[in-house]
Amino acid sequence: MRAPQSERTTAIELPAIAAGVLQRLRERKPRVHCITNAVAQNFTANMLLAAGAVPSMTIAQKEIRAFVARADALLVNLGTFDPERQKASLAAIGVANKAKIPWLLDPVFIDRSPPRAAFAKRLLALAPRLVRMNGPEFDALSRGKRADGAGEAALMRFAKARRTVAGLTGARDLVCDGARLAAVDNGDPLMAQVTAMGCAASALAGATLAVEPDAWKATVAALLIIGVAGEIAAARARGPGSFAMEILDAVSALDRDTLIAKARVS
Amino acid sequence: MRAPQSERTTAIELPAIAAGVLQRLRERKPRVHCITNAVAQNFTANMLLAAGAVPSMTIAQKEIRAFVARADALLVNLGTFDPERQKASLAAIGVANKAKIPWLLDPVFIDRSPPRAAFAKRLLALAPRLVRMNGPEFDALSRGKRADGAGEAALMRFAKARRTVAGLTGARDLVCDGARLAAVDNGDPLMAQVTAMGCAASALAGATLAVEPDAWKATVAALLIIGVAGEIAAARARGPGSFAMEILDAVSALDRDTLIAKARVS
Amino acid sequence: MRAPQSERTTAIELPAIAAGVLQRLRERKPRVHCITNAVAQNFTANMLLAAGAVPSMTIAQKEIRAFVARADALLVNLGTFDPERQKASLAAIGVANKAKIPWLLDPVFIDRSPPRAAFAKRLLALAPRLVRMNGPEFDALSRGKRADGAGEAALMRFAKARRTVAGLTGARDLVCDGARLAAVDNGDPLMAQVTAMGCAASALAGATLAVEPDAWKATVAALLIIGVAGEIAAARARGPGSFAMEILDAVSALDRDTLIAKARVS
Repeated sequence: MRAPQSERTTAIELPAIAAGVLQRLRERKPRVHCITNAVAQNFTANMLLAAGAVPSMTIAQKEIRAFVARADALLVNLGTFDPERQKASLAAIGVANKAKIPWLLDPVFIDRSPPRAAFAKRLLALAPRLVRMNGPEFDALSRGKRADGAGEAALMRFAKARRTVAGLTGARDLVCDGARLAAVDNGDPLMAQVTAMGCAASALAGATLAVEPDAWKATVAALLIIGVAGEIAAARARGPGSFAMEILDAVSALDRDTLIAKARVS
Repeated sequence: MRAPQSERTTAIELPAIAAGVLQRLRERKPRVHCITNAVAQNFTANMLLAAGAVPSMTIAQKEIRAFVARADALLVNLGTFDPERQKASLAAIGVANKAKIPWLLDPVFIDRSPPRAAFAKRLLALAPRLVRMNGPEFDALSRGKRADGAGEAALMRFAKARRTVAGLTGARDLVCDGARLAAVDNGDPLMAQVTAMGCAASALAGATLAVEPDAWKATVAALLIIGVAGEIAAARARGPGSFAMEILDAVSALDRDTLIAKARVS
Repeated sequence: MRAPQSERTTAIELPAIAAGVLQRLRERKPRVHCITNAVAQNFTANMLLAAGAVPSMTIAQKEIRAFVARADALLVNLGTFDPERQKASLAAIGVANKAKIPWLLDPVFIDRSPPRAAFAKRLLALAPRLVRMNGPEFDALSRGKRADGAGEAALMRFAKARRTVAGLTGARDLVCDGARLAAVDNGDPLMAQVTAMGCAASALAGATLAVEPDAWKATVAALLIIGVAGEIAAARARGPGSFAMEILDAVSALDRDTLIAKARVS
């Protein structure tokens, strides 16, 4: 983690901060409203329940404002890109911003669809607290300005210019708010062999945003929780089928000491 | 169970009745058409298959009447509240009522959405054989008339006035048809940590309604089956991920003797 | 397998051919775009990932052409029959045919819905490389011309007349291209107790079509892979819940020697 002197959080403190976030999440049981894709809905809901949060997923025009108004966080995932979800996203973000409910953007597959990338950019202007994305999605969102080897600097510029937290996930996860940068090295390759794992990580970040006002800390906490749980699950799993089940069990059972002991963040 | 003298079924008979229902379900393999929410579809279909029933889930205007006409029961679950499902529900109920195919209503989250509650009340007037709901949903449907401590009496009034069976699920499940009241104490807290478990219980009640004309007995049977299976699954599970898998295995393997031995109904 | 003299592939060669297809699939990681039903999406995506392929599932008008143009195969599954998916299917097939991307048709439940059967026939005229179906679906597609005991001959006529490969799955799977006929005897009855298993088999055939230009061989390979994995999974499973998980693990872990040793194809 590279942070200016003025920022007192050091990398060594982050595992304990994450443990505190997890504890508050379980105590407060935040409601997380998820506009998410059809493939991910079931696994995402189960991930939130395993962590202690309460999911809702409606996209109906008549009722989405009421759901968001009573939620503690909002996830906008672009994985299913239909007109109804686009309208729902704009309505939901309007309510969230007005009520100061934190929301995050997961710009799924925008690297493969120009209309989706254009919509993601439009949402980005509406001030999400966090954008959680993978490498190709970040490239599409930052218009390919990321030069090789310049990943961290580009992410820092992006977060600073957009006044958001950028969560770039991969073999190593980077979390940046324009001033602070943390790298999370937890996780397992099996996470890439289960559909909707990234979507579920975003939903979990919605839950942590609901209980931790510092979005950078909340994001690091979410990625540590799912990364450590992923390692525990991988040790028990025989393949991607059992892994999907084991990671829910591991998130549900994760305790403070294990999270702190296994966290690898710098 | 409190029942008038004229009603010959006593609580002690219900486990054996449930076992008979399960046996008929496996022999007849009823078709259950489910209009249900996007989050629940996969788990619901797997629950029905595990129990021995055959699910179908189309909501397309062009074909839903044909599917319902050939089904043995219909589930209308309001968890995804889009205009297409609303139209589909009305069309499907029309066919079901005309052909005397039993149908049930699961008014998911109506406590959080006034338009959904209004639609649920409209459907309630179309004579479902069963309404399966949790506490807040019952409050929304009965316009908050339930006073504390008066749960059973309120449920009895509701079932009597609406001429339906009311299945109120929670730590203790209550099943009431306006004259008879049964309480099912089976189940496990893990059931609340898996998304769509209530939806799947409703679908299972659709399957039991298809093979048992007494809707009150059919509902008690469904809740005993899933409750006992939930206890068996919880004993084997390490968390909500493995529990979701184990309960399908447990429903599929449930035998007469185990169901009767473990049933707790009064 | 009955084949004309001119065709040099003999049944005894098919297991090794299937093993070669699986190896290429894992090396090339083909993109398979799936227009599929809501119930099947999650399991289908996980089956493709377990096999080594990369799924995408959008049906949005604005972007489906771009997704298909960059895919290596296309699956059109009729299990959710809404107007949006119908438009998406026609657009996607147009792109696939123009770019010579192989596509296959899975005419789910056309035996239960005349409009769905009519649409399937329309798509059949657009030259799929493969139609994967069960018995009732084949009857609906071939207008009930299948006489009892005449299954193989009817399938042969169908494939010849339609210039496609017909994959008829059941206790014994038949794969026919109008000249060659293979019978695959792998699999387990538990496969019929998990929803979307047939849909996932079709998606897997999409992945094999992407790496094997002979559609008949590609189809036999897909059915051998899922059938052998099904047997391995059944030996480990306690019921349909654990089976759904185990088959993903088994597909992911399947090695050349096991596939060849367990394949039963004639």
